[in-house]
Amino acid sequence: MTAMIDLPTIADVAAAAGRLAGSAVRTPLLENADLNARVGGRVLIKPETLQRTGSFKFRGAGNKIAKLMQAGERPQTILAYSSGNHAQGVAAAARLAGLSALIVMPDDAPAIKIENTRALGAEIVFYDRRTEDREAITELLLRERGGTLVRPYDDPDVIAGQGTVGLEIAEQAHERGAVVDHVLVPCGGGGLTSGIALALSGASPKTRVHPVEPEGFDDTRRSLATGKILGNEPGATSFCDALLAPRPGALTFALNSRLVGEGFAVTDAETTAAMAFAFRTLKLVVEPGGAVALAAVLAGKIDCRKRTICIVLSGGNADPAIFCRAVGGPPPT
Amino acid sequence: MTAMIDLPTIADVAAAAGRLAGSAVRTPLLENADLNARVGGRVLIKPETLQRTGSFKFRGAGNKIAKLMQAGERPQTILAYSSGNHAQGVAAAARLAGLSALIVMPDDAPAIKIENTRALGAEIVFYDRRTEDREAITELLLRERGGTLVRPYDDPDVIAGQGTVGLEIAEQAHERGAVVDHVLVPCGGGGLTSGIALALSGASPKTRVHPVEPEGFDDTRRSLATGKILGNEPGATSFCDALLAPRPGALTFALNSRLVGEGFAVTDAETTAAMAFAFRTLKLVVEPGGAVALAAVLAGKIDCRKRTICIVLSGGNADPAIFCRAVGGPPPT
Repeated sequence: MTAMIDLPTIADVAAAAGRLAGSAVRTPLLENADLNARVGGRVLIKPETLQRTGSFKFRGAGNKIAKLMQAGERPQTILAYSSGNHAQGVAAAARLAGLSALIVMPDDAPAIKIENTRALGAEIVFYDRRTEDREAITELLLRERGGTLVRPYDDPDVIAGQGTVGLEIAEQAHERGAVVDHVLVPCGGGGLTSGIALALSGASPKTRVHPVEPEGFDDTRRSLATGKILGNEPGATSFCDALLAPRPGALTFALNSRLVGEGFAVTDAETTAAMAFAFRTLKLVVEPGGAVALAAVLAGKIDCRKRTICIVLSGGNADPAIFCRAVGGPPPT
Repeated sequence: MTAMIDLPTIADVAAAAGRLAGSAVRTPLLENADLNARVGGRVLIKPETLQRTGSFKFRGAGNKIAKLMQAGERPQTILAYSSGNHAQGVAAAARLAGLSALIVMPDDAPAIKIENTRALGAEIVFYDRRTEDREAITELLLRERGGTLVRPYDDPDVIAGQGTVGLEIAEQAHERGAVVDHVLVPCGGGGLTSGIALALSGASPKTRVHPVEPEGFDDTRRSLATGKILGNEPGATSFCDALLAPRPGALTFALNSRLVGEGFAVTDAETTAAMAFAFRTLKLVVEPGGAVALAAVLAGKIDCRKRTICIVLSGGNADPAIFCRAVGGPPPT
């Protein structure tokens, strides 16, 4: 590690947990007998679907904004670019702090994410994901209107906030007398994966963390395998709208390359089956990107026999039509 | 209360909790900021959807069967009649005890409940709900094949088992520094309502328990209001398949008439809206009958302002087509 980039530390995750106490939900750690029987091991389920705004993203945004406020900064506006879950996390955290939020979102984001972001009081600027650069649009807005940008993953305070998921996993597994062998984490830009890995490197050093990505968007898996940051091949598609980041972040990859084990990739068909399993058996609403770690376990990407595996369900903001198609309801008309 | 019927006691609920430790899930107590904001109070959510077999019914069946085994009985078969959730609870509890299960189910039960009951190894005998009497069929099977009947609600051990939900509510509310003013409970035959009321009469005597039923099947509400057991008027319909019991049980009504407050009735439209809210905001899969307490809160049947209300989500075994129709997915083709 060089001194050139500012990586968060275990202490930063602990500080984030303190800042988030009272606003973020301490999501439960669940277990399901049918899932355990199916994989022949013990699967602990961390449902960040039950987090404020329906995904883990409130943690990172909440920590970042709370830290700004503690430092005496009071930005006029909080800016963010996001496919939808970070948007909601930022909008909710900004509102709690009494700040306005301005979000740059792709015009093909799921309707539920657009509606929820708006319902949280944020202003939305849309762009075309195929022809426009969201970071350039955001830079322009920052120059025009001022404010503070909260990046979706490549920010030490955002990573530290997401890391509180890892602290809770360690504490809750300990409460039930379990030691987690492997944690599987849905991975887009790598903020949640690196935050959890950082937290567990202190709180449960025997636990191995693994990113899970959609096939065609397994940039983190390939980057970890080769030791350098690789982008996704152009032209791939996936319905996991939350996990389509083009390449690992500089900070997240610096952490992940030191801290995590091999990555896994799952097909959209495997993710669809996982959403249906979550509906039928777990009774949880999980969006496509939130279901990839469950998909990896159900599809046998990792041997769970006689092991304790933790899977993170990272988000539940699924549009009804996409959800119903996945769980075996009738197709959209 | 007369000495003629054998009512369960608070001690029986505590004993049930001991028997169920390790097999029943201690479901979490959840809270959602959007729901709190919407009703202007604090709503604690007890999701028995996350219980083994997807409803609270495993608790009562598990307690009954564990107590039989403790007493040295080892019936050849466990019999039950059920629209589907009790069926799964009995099938799972029988299998855990190494016993076979024989279940009498209506032929129009939701497919998911039939499939899950069969997957748990039970034999199913179907009957026509409109022309046949399930209790008579069950009596005949008992004479022909022997075994022990586990009634769905009018049994002290079943009521005591369901009461463990109430013990957990009291403990989990206490852990977060809350005192619950009102608990709203989905009510069919009254086993869950009376069990929770019994448990809370000891563990949280200031808490008032209220049954919630579908309109047209509000036999418990009307029976409580008049002080005597009234059946439902014939001809009513509701999609809350789990809550269509014809009249309150003798034991459950004896308890409820002493222990619970007024009942509430909700329309199927209100229940549909509650299922959609659970999908969109809580990210929980709730079946129609499991959603009526949430429906009562959302529809303003009880004033939640500045109060702490607990709602039980009693089951999540929804067929995909019914679920998707409710949550705004496309209609079935």
